[in-house]
Amino acid sequence: MAHIDLGLDETEFPGIIGLLKYRPETAKPLSELTGMLLRGANTLRPGERELIAAHVSGLNDCEFCRDAHSAFAAAQLEEGMPLVLSVRASPQLSAISPKLKALLAIAGAVRESGRSVTTELVEAARAEGATDLEIHDTVLIAAAFCMVNRYVDGLGTLVASSQEAYAQAAQRVVKTGYVN
Amino acid sequence: MAHIDLGLDETEFPGIIGLLKYRPETAKPLSELTGMLLRGANTLRPGERELIAAHVSGLNDCEFCRDAHSAFAAAQLEEGMPLVLSVRASPQLSAISPKLKALLAIAGAVRESGRSVTTELVEAARAEGATDLEIHDTVLIAAAFCMVNRYVDGLGTLVASSQEAYAQAAQRVVKTGYVN
Repeated sequence: MAHIDLGLDETEFPGIIGLLKYRPETAKPLSELTGMLLRGANTLRPGERELIAAHVSGLNDCEFCRDAHSAFAAAQLEEGMPLVLSVRASPQLSAISPKLKALLAIAGAVRESGRSVTTELVEAARAEGATDLEIHDTVLIAAAFCMVNRYVDGLGTLVASSQEAYAQAAQRVVKTGYVN
Repeated sequence: MAHIDLGLDETEFPGIIGLLKYRPETAKPLSELTGMLLRGANTLRPGERELIAAHVSGLNDCEFCRDAHSAFAAAQLEEGMPLVLSVRASPQLSAISPKLKALLAIAGAVRESGRSVTTELVEAARAEGATDLEIHDTVLIAAAFCMVNRYVDGLGTLVASSQEAYAQAAQRVVKTGYVN
């Protein structure tokens, strides 16, 4: 049970879904921000951006966001869930591009603290071909999930009933995006 | 200097201001979220909500956000900057209401991790009269500043040139709010 009364069936609306229904005034900009970062026009593919979200959520130990965005990444990457799980276990050992490895290293630093992002990490990403906009969006995606993870867990929301539920949600996100 | 080329004079647009100009697509929902949380209709006064933002930003060691939101809190609280500084030093010893102390304890827990928010912390806030919506917004304000602090420092932006610059920005925020 969540720490506050959301006025709905939490098993039907787990994680952030119930929170977005509880407070539509904040749901609107939150959904727009997530949609722009994960599905808006960008040289990073949506599946790659979902990997950043899944990786940061895993490091933050936020089960709902980790499993949701792992499913969303898997649904948008040819290599599917095996690749997502290998990235969550070790981005540097996984079979992703050197550029994405460097961006995930930046995301991991952001997760610790903004001050952990060093010039060396940024230069390493740039050396692998990352653009300024890709670096900007990686930092903001990682930072945004440091918010969302804390929002979801800080209010004590439930996780979904099964991995299948996340996979079904992934189909909806791929089809219609994040706008609430 | 920021880690990426923002295409503007960073001394004129320090901290998040330059980032909002660099990426208007994400600036819009970020400004709307901040405006709703800190200035929207709420039983917590804007000055009290700015105190939450200043406190979390101080704990995250984000100099720009800490000094900006301290100035914004001071401008909207009768007791001004002396109260803000005492809250940043120790919310529990400062001269704020028991309810706000309990909400700041929740905000401090959110800063560590969403999982650090316990039923006991929530019950303590409720015992001091905090409503569900106040608890919700406290969690989301604290979480949002965990994002903004990482965004500002993760991209290596500059701080403002003086405390006077933050005080001037406070006058603008009080007058026109956060919408970009």
